[in-house]
Amino acid sequence: MGFREHLQEVVRAVDGAVACSLMGVDGIEVDTHLTDGAGGIDVRTLLIEYSSLFRLAREAAETHQAGAVSELCIQTDLILTVARLVTSEYFMVVALRADGNFGKARYVLRVTAPRLRSELEL
Amino acid sequence: MGFREHLQEVVRAVDGAVACSLMGVDGIEVDTHLTDGAGGIDVRTLLIEYSSLFRLAREAAETHQAGAVSELCIQTDLILTVARLVTSEYFMVVALRADGNFGKARYVLRVTAPRLRSELEL
Repeated sequence: MGFREHLQEVVRAVDGAVACSLMGVDGIEVDTHLTDGAGGIDVRTLLIEYSSLFRLAREAAETHQAGAVSELCIQTDLILTVARLVTSEYFMVVALRADGNFGKARYVLRVTAPRLRSELEL
Repeated sequence: MGFREHLQEVVRAVDGAVACSLMGVDGIEVDTHLTDGAGGIDVRTLLIEYSSLFRLAREAAETHQAGAVSELCIQTDLILTVARLVTSEYFMVVALRADGNFGKARYVLRVTAPRLRSELEL
């Protein structure tokens, strides 16, 4: 099962999910599965912009000895994103419509992250 | 009931909460209730640094027509923070130990934000 299949499976499993990406903490996208459910929002670019938040959160947490950032969630009026660290250099992120299932998104990322980690280490 | 009492009430109501702040989106702290439960972590400064993430998330969401950012959550190995917009210029944020009650924190901020908003408009 490759990256793309894992990302597709996340979108399939989470009600309201419209996209799922594997990204470098540096903002470089590795792979994305995107549906057409996001209305007029350019979710791919939004997720790339959000990656800078993951990087900044990590820097702030490290500076204050708060440990590694494992999860970052951003809720807007229209889109909810949940990002989860996969390795120290990569994270995965799922974007949901605002009425999507937040708890399920967190759960599915939690169980999928170790599987993606195994793929990255191949 | 002033700002401080609301912040104290949030910390009292949420298992594992160690601090609660009312902050400007510009990173200027209005008021903070801080306990000594955060170990060696300087939570007050961490929350101020995190405020820049709230600002960046807002800019990214506005750029992509994703609406206003209502909530931002950051989980690290040691500290979980949940921030919620109070007005367009202020947000409140609660910091919990990593084993704190995330769901309760989100709920308590959701019900407390409108009360703080009323105080701000006085």
